[in-house]
Amino acid sequence: MPACLFPGSFDPLTNGHLDLIARLSALYGEVVVCVMQNLAKKSLFSTEDRLSLIRQACKGRIPHVRAVSYPGFTVEAAKKEGCAVMARGLRSALDYEYETQLALVNRHLAPGVETIFLPADPALSAVSSSFIREIHALGGDVSALVPECVLHALQALKV
Amino acid sequence: MPACLFPGSFDPLTNGHLDLIARLSALYGEVVVCVMQNLAKKSLFSTEDRLSLIRQACKGRIPHVRAVSYPGFTVEAAKKEGCAVMARGLRSALDYEYETQLALVNRHLAPGVETIFLPADPALSAVSSSFIREIHALGGDVSALVPECVLHALQALKV
Amino acid sequence: MPACLFPGSFDPLTNGHLDLIARLSALYGEVVVCVMQNLAKKSLFSTEDRLSLIRQACKGRIPHVRAVSYPGFTVEAAKKEGCAVMARGLRSALDYEYETQLALVNRHLAPGVETIFLPADPALSAVSSSFIREIHALGGDVSALVPECVLHALQALKV
Amino acid sequence: MPACLFPGSFDPLTNGHLDLIARLSALYGEVVVCVMQNLAKKSLFSTEDRLSLIRQACKGRIPHVRAVSYPGFTVEAAKKEGCAVMARGLRSALDYEYETQLALVNRHLAPGVETIFLPADPALSAVSSSFIREIHALGGDVSALVPECVLHALQALKV
Amino acid sequence: MPACLFPGSFDPLTNGHLDLIARLSALYGEVVVCVMQNLAKKSLFSTEDRLSLIRQACKGRIPHVRAVSYPGFTVEAAKKEGCAVMARGLRSALDYEYETQLALVNRHLAPGVETIFLPADPALSAVSSSFIREIHALGGDVSALVPECVLHALQALKV
Amino acid sequence: MPACLFPGSFDPLTNGHLDLIARLSALYGEVVVCVMQNLAKKSLFSTEDRLSLIRQACKGRIPHVRAVSYPGFTVEAAKKEGCAVMARGLRSALDYEYETQLALVNRHLAPGVETIFLPADPALSAVSSSFIREIHALGGDVSALVPECVLHALQALKV
Repeated sequence: MPACLFPGSFDPLTNGHLDLIARLSALYGEVVVCVMQNLAKKSLFSTEDRLSLIRQACKGRIPHVRAVSYPGFTVEAAKKEGCAVMARGLRSALDYEYETQLALVNRHLAPGVETIFLPADPALSAVSSSFIREIHALGGDVSALVPECVLHALQALKV
Repeated sequence: MPACLFPGSFDPLTNGHLDLIARLSALYGEVVVCVMQNLAKKSLFSTEDRLSLIRQACKGRIPHVRAVSYPGFTVEAAKKEGCAVMARGLRSALDYEYETQLALVNRHLAPGVETIFLPADPALSAVSSSFIREIHALGGDVSALVPECVLHALQALKV
Repeated sequence: MPACLFPGSFDPLTNGHLDLIARLSALYGEVVVCVMQNLAKKSLFSTEDRLSLIRQACKGRIPHVRAVSYPGFTVEAAKKEGCAVMARGLRSALDYEYETQLALVNRHLAPGVETIFLPADPALSAVSSSFIREIHALGGDVSALVPECVLHALQALKV
Repeated sequence: MPACLFPGSFDPLTNGHLDLIARLSALYGEVVVCVMQNLAKKSLFSTEDRLSLIRQACKGRIPHVRAVSYPGFTVEAAKKEGCAVMARGLRSALDYEYETQLALVNRHLAPGVETIFLPADPALSAVSSSFIREIHALGGDVSALVPECVLHALQALKV
Repeated sequence: MPACLFPGSFDPLTNGHLDLIARLSALYGEVVVCVMQNLAKKSLFSTEDRLSLIRQACKGRIPHVRAVSYPGFTVEAAKKEGCAVMARGLRSALDYEYETQLALVNRHLAPGVETIFLPADPALSAVSSSFIREIHALGGDVSALVPECVLHALQALKV
Repeated sequence: MPACLFPGSFDPLTNGHLDLIARLSALYGEVVVCVMQNLAKKSLFSTEDRLSLIRQACKGRIPHVRAVSYPGFTVEAAKKEGCAVMARGLRSALDYEYETQLALVNRHLAPGVETIFLPADPALSAVSSSFIREIHALGGDVSALVPECVLHALQALKV
């Protein structure tokens, strides 16, 4: 059974991400969740915290998941981890436009790595990491949008 | 290695379809190309001819391909053929909108079957079966858009 | 409290329609659900049956709903029923494009009638009447997508 | 000054078409308005009537316009009329998607003919020929949406 | 007659905003124009100036308008002001995508508050506050795009 | 033969830009490639370097090209250079949305200057300047995406 890379910033992990990881886990021998390190962008959680939250959220619930981080291109991460496939979720036509351009660029950079798209669960399609960060910053309740461990980590940040 | 269903009408098979079949063949143990029989829609080629053209075009070029036909839902075809995944190509945001709705309906009909999308090769993104049929009807040259066996079959239709 | 027209073909009424009617009922003094008669298009249910199914589905569940039918323009129906507002649900960017053009044409035909859009519940966004008709025609299960009275009416059609 | 082909069905000519013809007339030495003959599609006006209405509407108002008809591909019409450019208006993202696919197919059929797009005047963006036909069929007023000669021709059809 | 919240940054108020406020004023007993305070984003006008310009522009022209400001979520402003409805204008499919995600997030945060969309007047659809700010910064003429009081305020800024 | 302005930031020039310049050169007496100076945005190359790279890339390959720079509005550059037309490439529906809004604003600022769109070559549609900058920053290979002189300039930047 082949392995699949699921790259992202996961800042923080959402219930939308978890749904995609669970669906990929049913299709692939291993799902390598890969936290991309973007030094140019200020993040809410450190790379280490994001990896830890992904591991806590999947443990005992979703099998065959491994969390790693990588500083460069997603396609290089895919090659290093032995994944011929990278998966991305699509929540809207806007996502489609952006992700397709990215997939074409990646195909140019690494012709042997294929990008596949999964339609996001529509009930979770409004749950983006950036909305979570905004709601959290304004003191809103995100308990229905993120795994429990992420909720606790957000509450700890507040202090 | 799991199998993947690639459903469509393939009326006729295009170079865009062939590119997707080849890419799927690199990712899955078997690609089951499934000609959906839509009795309500008038077709250019019979189901039998379409199956034969798919087999001729893939033979000796793309490994692990099997061509079948089915009269009902694509998800039923997937279950019957033992495929946990159905693949569809996306050529535009318009395709995305339609295919996502279809994927959600299929998920309702058969929760265990997942739909994945592959971005079409942009150089082939204008090659749809319906454009091929229109160009052919007006006597235009489609030799760069379809496999050789389809070109011959179109020329034979003309007589 | 003003009244609102909710026009459509409702062939048949879906759970997506019902969700919109309930939400409109919370905002307006009366929701006039208006079955538009399109003689050019072949329908599954007669206008009378569609009206009857809307009434059955709303009765005792959604207050302030009245079902009517009209043979001409939706804006004329709005004026006849005393509605300054017509409401339409949006399920996708594709819907947006079409509905906006229609709203602009209607504004030209009747400047005093405003069209408002409500975002469809994403969990119901794949539930269109045409998908229901297709699934039903192929013998699929639509019990989770339509009200119970519509399910019975579909089953009665089969005989 | 080069010539430009403006192809379409013009069934009937609208104020949106006229706006584009006038803008093209300011940019090109000649605007060849080309009525494409599509035998498969039932039309409201005959090819001859459409040509006559285009000529009447432009006469004395928009200079350098010539109206022709053609039975085949638009690119063949462009080559026959000595036009290196074909122009199309875009009213929406939906138009963009369809027109881009068509332009790519045409580029394949005739590499020397370029397609350019002009953004439609937004105030006229809801004025499509198909909406005009629908409104007319239901007895609605289209006097603000079409040139006067088209209005008279529509009224004459009614009798 | 119920009240409606019309939230935005209004930095500055445009003729597109004014058109929407006038149309909402015809549909609701009161339109509460709510200047959202976003401390993270640098603004051209202060909150107080924006409120003052909204009041000046509507005074004597559009009835039932009240201007307020709020530092948190739009849904909280809606609840505080007793509005069961928030209205937003849609100028493009891009707007649709963004506004729909926002509406779904708001629905999660406050299930009792509904978001409705109005199609922008296409003749005003290019008039965004950010374009006004850009044109103003480059010394361009915005007199046809904003109310007179905003024009004067922009000119005063320049000094 | 009229002249055409092709405005952009060209930071850096890509093969996608070059394809559009060559196609415009076949349609117009002169193509004025105009580097817009945006002081607010940090750039990779200076305006002078960008002009120099455009001249090197076109020299001896694409006739009738002139490269200029301008600090203000694109429409003012068009008027100053005697161009009645500005051309922009469209790579996606997202591009369409943004470029149409810009064209409408420009039409307001200078009614006599028309914007035309050309569909980007789909094989080059993923080649944006911002992707080039990102790939370069991460040390990726862009040799197939930019002209040779730009490749050398990027490599010189690295040192």
